Amino acid sequence: MRNLNQDTITQAVLARLATTTDPRLKEIMTSLVQHLHAFAREVKLTEAEWLQGIEFLTATGQMCDNKRQEFILLSDTLGLSMLTVAMNNDKPLGCTEPTVFGPFFLEEAPRFKLGDDVANGAKGEPCMVRGTVKSLDGTPVPNALINVWQADADGNYDVQYTHLAHPQARGILNADAEGKFHFRTILAEAYPIPSDGPVGKMLAATKNHPWRPAHLHFMIEAPGYERLITHVFRDHDQYLDSDVVFGVRSSLIADWVKLPDGTYSLEFDFVLNPLK
Amino acid sequence: MRNLNQDTITQAVLARLATTTDPRLKEIMTSLVQHLHAFAREVKLTEAEWLQGIEFLTATGQMCDNKRQEFILLSDTLGLSMLTVAMNNDKPLGCTEPTVFGPFFLEEAPRFKLGDDVANGAKGEPCMVRGTVKSLDGTPVPNALINVWQADADGNYDVQYTHLAHPQARGILNADAEGKFHFRTILAEAYPIPSDGPVGKMLAATKNHPWRPAHLHFMIEAPGYERLITHVFRDHDQYLDSDVVFGVRSSLIADWVKLPDGTYSLEFDFVLNPLK
Repeated sequence: MRNLNQDTITQAVLARLATTTDPRLKEIMTSLVQHLHAFAREVKLTEAEWLQGIEFLTATGQMCDNKRQEFILLSDTLGLSMLTVAMNNDKPLGCTEPTVFGPFFLEEAPRFKLGDDVANGAKGEPCMVRGTVKSLDGTPVPNALINVWQADADGNYDVQYTHLAHPQARGILNADAEGKFHFRTILAEAYPIPSDGPVGKMLAATKNHPWRPAHLHFMIEAPGYERLITHVFRDHDQYLDSDVVFGVRSSLIADWVKLPDGTYSLEFDFVLNPLK
Repeated sequence: MRNLNQDTITQAVLARLATTTDPRLKEIMTSLVQHLHAFAREVKLTEAEWLQGIEFLTATGQMCDNKRQEFILLSDTLGLSMLTVAMNNDKPLGCTEPTVFGPFFLEEAPRFKLGDDVANGAKGEPCMVRGTVKSLDGTPVPNALINVWQADADGNYDVQYTHLAHPQARGILNADAEGKFHFRTILAEAYPIPSDGPVGKMLAATKNHPWRPAHLHFMIEAPGYERLITHVFRDHDQYLDSDVVFGVRSSLIADWVKLPDGTYSLEFDFVLNPLK
């Protein structure tokens, strides 16, 4: 392996991978190297552009901490997240469709009881959310574990504030034995993804806006069912057709009804896919 | 752009890039998205593998600081660096061949005079390096600016030590009016690239060693000539055919002669490519 040139180096790198004993790792690395090299060759990447790429990836990693995940943002805005979700969630017709996970989920969220206000002080119009978790055949799924999280009226998740004393607008609760759940929160609003990092610069350079249509995140788990990661989107949002992370599905758009007292109400049922 | 699935999302992301006004950026992003998606589709990337990838890239970025560049190591070990060098340095026959830049160059290196010891206290067998910087037609290139850097006898660059008072085994000097240069340093030895980070884990997982054959780095600049970034490798090194970064060229291998007094001598001439 000496004197490799642009025509021989890809095969040399692939030959180096031949020693990989884990077959799946070998498959992934082989495909990755081929596409990485094909990309560089196709655009005839210059050395200056290569260095810009190195600096972009470095800055993306350095933007990450336990509350900010810039690489997930990058994956989301390049459509890789939604592609991965789509490839891995070929659920039967009738199941609630999944969408992107996003970068703002926290493992450690506060527990709530049905009827509680998960907003926990977050700014926004009051909103009541109700629904039922069901199986594909329409029977209720009892006691499903529901994670819910969302941005506030200013478009920020709690983790984007540096001095909050406790989590806001996120929580974990269980549906009841009949699959029913209800909780109070705030009205979801459209918001821009954080644009003060490398991903924001990329969007600006490609003349794309950083906005997501208003939505409420859900992760729903129950024994015997596939985990569901999804959103409910707010109808009539101006960004439904240009979501910066490509996540909108018509079946996930719901009417958030304004009641006579000025508060909002959302009703949405979730249909889980039974494990085979 | 709603209801995107695994068959339609790539076109949707490409359509989003249509607004990019910089034609080169548009070309690069379009190719990048196509190859990124093709990779994910080809291996049918799972959601768990996607998250592993996110975590790998995040850790790679977080390993970087002003003395450690883990993304360059990643590019080097995936053969991307050498591919980029090869594509962009199609020099005429007779010119010194370039090779990878590596992650250990520093902009701020000490200045030396001809004959000085650039080792500056670094551990290793004493070695004298001599040569001439020439043009393609054999005429000397006067006063070329020469950056030189290398690892010590323990296989470490100065930046890998945390408590050094000053740079070691790196420096900047000028060839004389006849193109001649000479300086003292230490014998180059084979060494493993840093393996305490994500790249080291990747090499271990693919059952590859992290070693580079012994070499001395050069960056040579002179007005009217293409900048040359290269190494001189030590003949008979056991890693010449398995360099972890794919950088060895036969024309860059030289005999480092052991003299009767136990010190070493290297003679190597560099041929620069005149700018058109």
